[in-house]
Amino acid sequence: MDDSNTKNSKCRIVVDAMGGDYAPQNAVVGAIEAFNEMKDFDLILIGKKDEILNVIKSNQLSFDPDKIIHTDEIIGMGDSPTAALKSKPNSSLVKGVQLVKDGKADAFVSAGNTGAVSAAGTLIIGRLPGVERPTIGTYIPNLKGITTVFDVGAFVDSKPQHLLGYAQLANVYIKEMYNIESPTIGLLSVGEENEKGNKLTKETFELLKNSNLNFFGNIEGGDILTGKVNIVICDGFVGNILLKFGESFLKILKPMLKKTADSNFFDKLKIAISKNSVKKTFKVFDPNDYGGIPLLGIKAIVIIGHGSSSKTGIKNMVLKAREMHNKNLVSKIENSIKLNSQKKLDN
Amino acid sequence: MDDSNTKNSKCRIVVDAMGGDYAPQNAVVGAIEAFNEMKDFDLILIGKKDEILNVIKSNQLSFDPDKIIHTDEIIGMGDSPTAALKSKPNSSLVKGVQLVKDGKADAFVSAGNTGAVSAAGTLIIGRLPGVERPTIGTYIPNLKGITTVFDVGAFVDSKPQHLLGYAQLANVYIKEMYNIESPTIGLLSVGEENEKGNKLTKETFELLKNSNLNFFGNIEGGDILTGKVNIVICDGFVGNILLKFGESFLKILKPMLKKTADSNFFDKLKIAISKNSVKKTFKVFDPNDYGGIPLLGIKAIVIIGHGSSSKTGIKNMVLKAREMHNKNLVSKIENSIKLNSQKKLDN
Repeated sequence: MDDSNTKNSKCRIVVDAMGGDYAPQNAVVGAIEAFNEMKDFDLILIGKKDEILNVIKSNQLSFDPDKIIHTDEIIGMGDSPTAALKSKPNSSLVKGVQLVKDGKADAFVSAGNTGAVSAAGTLIIGRLPGVERPTIGTYIPNLKGITTVFDVGAFVDSKPQHLLGYAQLANVYIKEMYNIESPTIGLLSVGEENEKGNKLTKETFELLKNSNLNFFGNIEGGDILTGKVNIVICDGFVGNILLKFGESFLKILKPMLKKTADSNFFDKLKIAISKNSVKKTFKVFDPNDYGGIPLLGIKAIVIIGHGSSSKTGIKNMVLKAREMHNKNLVSKIENSIKLNSQKKLDN
Repeated sequence: MDDSNTKNSKCRIVVDAMGGDYAPQNAVVGAIEAFNEMKDFDLILIGKKDEILNVIKSNQLSFDPDKIIHTDEIIGMGDSPTAALKSKPNSSLVKGVQLVKDGKADAFVSAGNTGAVSAAGTLIIGRLPGVERPTIGTYIPNLKGITTVFDVGAFVDSKPQHLLGYAQLANVYIKEMYNIESPTIGLLSVGEENEKGNKLTKETFELLKNSNLNFFGNIEGGDILTGKVNIVICDGFVGNILLKFGESFLKILKPMLKKTADSNFFDKLKIAISKNSVKKTFKVFDPNDYGGIPLLGIKAIVIIGHGSSSKTGIKNMVLKAREMHNKNLVSKIENSIKLNSQKKLDN
């Protein structure tokens, strides 16, 4: 696929109406809200047509029924990713990704099974030339803005060249989407000194140091939230554990505050009063604001959202897909990879 | 060293007066407070004698000056662990650990350089027979009580048998110190299903499944804070990143609450009111309450504290060393290892 052909063309986005814990409600309403706000892209909804129509009707929305593609299978959150792709070929997820593969759409957006969406994107749409492993990242807010972490679970047992690849993909994404000319890249390790780390990070350190990336060096677990770097690079095993641990931290703080409050009437009163302030602070960590995470390194745009995505979450995912298309991101990544391998040959 | 000889003997604890960010102040005051509370053990302070005497005087404490051992070198927080052991043989850390090795004390307590204390404990005191790698763990509070995580940074690039070893050491420690007959053990991975994980955890899963431990199975990053298991097992690389990330979470929440508050006068008021409740909740996560972390798998008792340990933190570390001695923990670990290897031979 030559992305220069699609440059400036009207973006066509397929939204998986059956993806996520609150599907089809949030997926359908969020997608139509994004469409109504922008109107400069084509929206295709894929999933059980009668259910989609019901959501449209009950929310008093209007949407062209010809833009709804019926599929009758659903890949659930608990389904084994690669097995589900084979056993459920008529699912909204597989058919939706296939539309992108066949050039009938430019982007696929889903809050469904993360592993299955990653696998479909990688296996059906395919990797860009020169990409050994695609990657998915996450946003972690900090006092200055946001930090992104790549990889957060697409792959485990990464090799040094895979981590270098994640850094190269993330670099183009952050540069283009957040207008940061030369994003700083930190390698997640157990000490700041160059020689600290495990076998994987020590070898990766050398690759990053010798790359044309703005490599900051090693960073520690405590440096992520302080915003020391724009991009944190790690193996998917570490990234996934970190991401889930962080999410659970916010979940546990609320009942802990409540537990403290229950032990004392005055504390109860104070916490009731402060609930809104605490809520506002926690809002910063709300994944719905960040519009999902892209699967980087494949030949088209795939945006993966949190299973619990709200309507706003889905809306922001669709808007992000649109922005990635309008900024011609896939071509830019492709060109950057070509340039990197050219430089390698020249050296 | 045969621990049965020291059984019921009066415990002799050496405290590194120069260890930690607030040394010698917190180390000296905290240690003497523990001594004054219990009086049933011998306390030895090691470090710069004049500085120790100054702290005792300025805090209007009394302490037998003959129990102060003078050393004039200090291993700093930034010193390279194994290099420092060689280059600073007259440091409070090396001399203190040597006292334990020579049978002149039963336990060493320090809030100094974690890596250097681990290295000194392992290299000078030595590993118990059958222990390939000692381990250090951490406490993570949850809604029900606490969860412990082993390993948090003693070693990276662990092999499956190392992770099994950490689980066996942690099992005896948690059983004896927290009176939990059969602690549940979870293997930290990226999915709950048996087949999920990286190469290391997949192989470790089989070892734990076939051990005599109460193995729960895989757990995810989000299960640590919910208290799903008593003991979480992981490689030190992952544990260290997790620990530092968790600590930084608490640090960032305070300025974030403040930032939210500063944007609005009423929020400011509310947060001022709620400060105490939030503080009380955060108190649960205060490492000073847990009395440091033991280096498990060596021939004596070594307790390592957070660099920022308060006086109470040091006091609790000394009390923990005393409890470990009185419960004869090192012998119990030694016997458990013998039993495990006996069973292996019998099979």
